[in-house]
Amino acid sequence: MTRIENLYLLPIAEVAALIRKREVSPVELVKAYLERINAMEPTVKAYITPMPDEALSAAFEAEKAINRGDYLGPLHGIPIGLKDVFDIKGVRTTLGTKGAVDLMPTEDSTAASKLRKAGAIFLGKLNMTELAFGITGENIHYGNTANPWKRGHISGGSSSGSAAATAAGECAAALGTDTGGSVRIPASLCGVVGLIPTFGRVSLRGVFPLSWSMDHVGVITRTVQDCAILLNAISGYDPQDTSSADVEVPDFAANLDQGVQSLRIGLPLAHAWDILDDTVSNRVTRATETLAQMGASLTEVSVPFFSSIADAFSPIARGEAIVSYQDLLKSSASSLDPNVKQRVEMGLTVSTPDYIRAQQARSRLRQEARAVFQQVDLLATPTCIIAAPPYSTEEVKVGGTKMTLLDALGRLTRFANFIGLPAISVPCGFSEGGLPIGLQLIGRPFEEAEVLRAAHAYETSNQWRLHHPSLA
Amino acid sequence: MTRIENLYLLPIAEVAALIRKREVSPVELVKAYLERINAMEPTVKAYITPMPDEALSAAFEAEKAINRGDYLGPLHGIPIGLKDVFDIKGVRTTLGTKGAVDLMPTEDSTAASKLRKAGAIFLGKLNMTELAFGITGENIHYGNTANPWKRGHISGGSSSGSAAATAAGECAAALGTDTGGSVRIPASLCGVVGLIPTFGRVSLRGVFPLSWSMDHVGVITRTVQDCAILLNAISGYDPQDTSSADVEVPDFAANLDQGVQSLRIGLPLAHAWDILDDTVSNRVTRATETLAQMGASLTEVSVPFFSSIADAFSPIARGEAIVSYQDLLKSSASSLDPNVKQRVEMGLTVSTPDYIRAQQARSRLRQEARAVFQQVDLLATPTCIIAAPPYSTEEVKVGGTKMTLLDALGRLTRFANFIGLPAISVPCGFSEGGLPIGLQLIGRPFEEAEVLRAAHAYETSNQWRLHHPSLA
Repeated sequence: MTRIENLYLLPIAEVAALIRKREVSPVELVKAYLERINAMEPTVKAYITPMPDEALSAAFEAEKAINRGDYLGPLHGIPIGLKDVFDIKGVRTTLGTKGAVDLMPTEDSTAASKLRKAGAIFLGKLNMTELAFGITGENIHYGNTANPWKRGHISGGSSSGSAAATAAGECAAALGTDTGGSVRIPASLCGVVGLIPTFGRVSLRGVFPLSWSMDHVGVITRTVQDCAILLNAISGYDPQDTSSADVEVPDFAANLDQGVQSLRIGLPLAHAWDILDDTVSNRVTRATETLAQMGASLTEVSVPFFSSIADAFSPIARGEAIVSYQDLLKSSASSLDPNVKQRVEMGLTVSTPDYIRAQQARSRLRQEARAVFQQVDLLATPTCIIAAPPYSTEEVKVGGTKMTLLDALGRLTRFANFIGLPAISVPCGFSEGGLPIGLQLIGRPFEEAEVLRAAHAYETSNQWRLHHPSLA
Repeated sequence: MTRIENLYLLPIAEVAALIRKREVSPVELVKAYLERINAMEPTVKAYITPMPDEALSAAFEAEKAINRGDYLGPLHGIPIGLKDVFDIKGVRTTLGTKGAVDLMPTEDSTAASKLRKAGAIFLGKLNMTELAFGITGENIHYGNTANPWKRGHISGGSSSGSAAATAAGECAAALGTDTGGSVRIPASLCGVVGLIPTFGRVSLRGVFPLSWSMDHVGVITRTVQDCAILLNAISGYDPQDTSSADVEVPDFAANLDQGVQSLRIGLPLAHAWDILDDTVSNRVTRATETLAQMGASLTEVSVPFFSSIADAFSPIARGEAIVSYQDLLKSSASSLDPNVKQRVEMGLTVSTPDYIRAQQARSRLRQEARAVFQQVDLLATPTCIIAAPPYSTEEVKVGGTKMTLLDALGRLTRFANFIGLPAISVPCGFSEGGLPIGLQLIGRPFEEAEVLRAAHAYETSNQWRLHHPSLA
């Protein structure tokens, strides 16, 4: 066996080919990742609970299985990290908090169990915004996750560790969750790929809920192809998850190369792109023009509600968070980050009529979105309207408009959760400060394949994966 | 033209054939109904706002159209009543209440508009339980609707006028609404057919809401075939109704005669039939045995949640009613029936977490119901576990168990609204006191055709429509 440099930076598809040909062994790969984690963690703080022993012993098992010819597929022997909301049997689920939370799962979440069956190896539980209630990457208990591209800048959240670890070579890919942007925002800010499938596509069983009607399991990877590989493994109907949809699951990795010919891409310019940093605007515009050059058609579409759904989004997210965290608020309010506590407690002010009216508004917007998706196949926007700012930024000025950091990061991502649509963030360039910018593509319900195909076409036209973070 | 006796008691299908052959004219038919209304109303109190002038002038229009060969189909010239929650342009919508409500619609509800396009003639707006919040037929403002089978007995509600008028020959059929049984209960108690289609099948636009996530438009007719004819007219996607489902609409009247061969009918005996009046039990059992003799298979199924959904049903119904009636509670609380007011105000005690947890329970039960409907095609139960009691009954003793009248009437109907399933009540016999008993058949989402087919097979095996109420 030849020793390959920087094994821990290879996309899954490439390293899987090496494993399959037995040119790389899962043990060698896991060791490379464990070394990498040791080297990077003092800076990046992506892990809450590393699982080196379990990972190594799983790697030996995988190696044995592969050596005797029992190759399970492209995730066999691949080291994955999981945001610390996914139950793994026998490993504490912290939700990024401390205190009275004492969740010791007796079984795997469905997503973890499916990854295990596909041969994936768990490297550990990843850092996250406390209770998944925030989007910067700040965590007073386990440390602020660093943006691997620039020291002191936010990683984005709440799946902060998932994005930073994937970008920094501390795992080959990661699972995250996304209720308003928590997978796509950190993926965008850390320069990796982040996908949420349609609501109902991937089981939420064993994933601690934030907002039961808007939570999506998501994946963070280095390439779009890797996204498809992970999505293949974790998708499917789960009779134990009430939000699970019993719809056919295509092979997401099979038709990635079909290109974007005849794909209609809608640009909700006036409403979603209204306030943009010049660089973000240039990069994302260039990305959509690239797609047009490859055969897609671009249309400006009117989606007036795109960036104005906050009024209906907030009562739902907040009201449902109270149901999720009611016990926790009682038992360990004193140990919560005061900012997080304040955010959670805002849910107590949501009245039943407020919540119901928000759901009614949601129902109306779902129908309006449906009409938009009769004109176009995908919507394209920036993922975030700014690149990652330094930690402790509270307000930003974008295109002359002052706004909170939360609004700047989350204004274009909530839409997909609100309607339950699949969406991806794929890197499309860098800010002048050298920080990544993401292109968001949003698709129709259960049309992840179309989202992936367009993102893959764009990505492979640019060879983004040749770029690696400066801290890495 | 030969003068036909009791024109006003003929099923739509029969009178439509006569109209088409010009053996009966719409004017003659409307006049027969108007006479009948004049004769019956002092006793029955089925109408809030009769529309004799509009009906007659529409009848002249229909007659002219048919005479010049523009026959629109089986509803052309057919006199229909509408529960007073359906907007008709220029006619006050009262919701069965008085006081500050002053709803003068400037356009037809979608259902009314579709009926009009099919050539139907509106006889008037029908009596109902005030605000649709009750199931007896009591109304302090417009009079208690009488059960046409026995003076002093309840008609059932909230679509009291819809059922009583159809049974008493005061309209050929009626539209009603049903949030927990409000179409099927009065249909069952008045010995007529009552159907609710799948949630989303018929537009709710222009129908004053009670519970936006459980309201169903329904139809009340004298035969199952008439149900199919009405459903054909009012079904279909409505982009102006956010709950509307864009699914194909079959011809419900086309394949009614296919029989029940190979149909699997589930009997949730232990859970839904647990407490039954002996006569109700005998009649409904005999009805399902009739279906079995015609080729259906009967299976006892376990639906443990069938009669125990009240805990989750109530917070949703009550919480959503507050949103519907908030303005009304402010403006005209003093004129409300104190019982109705009290029922509505119970919604004020539903907290946001209560409501959300109820929706989560609903989501679980929807999934469990899905599993039940993999074993069977239809569920069969009594519609109500008792026949119509006298007005002012508050408690009843059924099979040795004391319960409120509300519970006795509504315990088996809420399930369909809770899950959004199509369900029919079809007459299946009489109590010892000579009051009608109903068989309820519940189907899979968007399988109204199967529900109608089974109900039609049963009905035509028994010639129920030869029976007419004693008051009539």
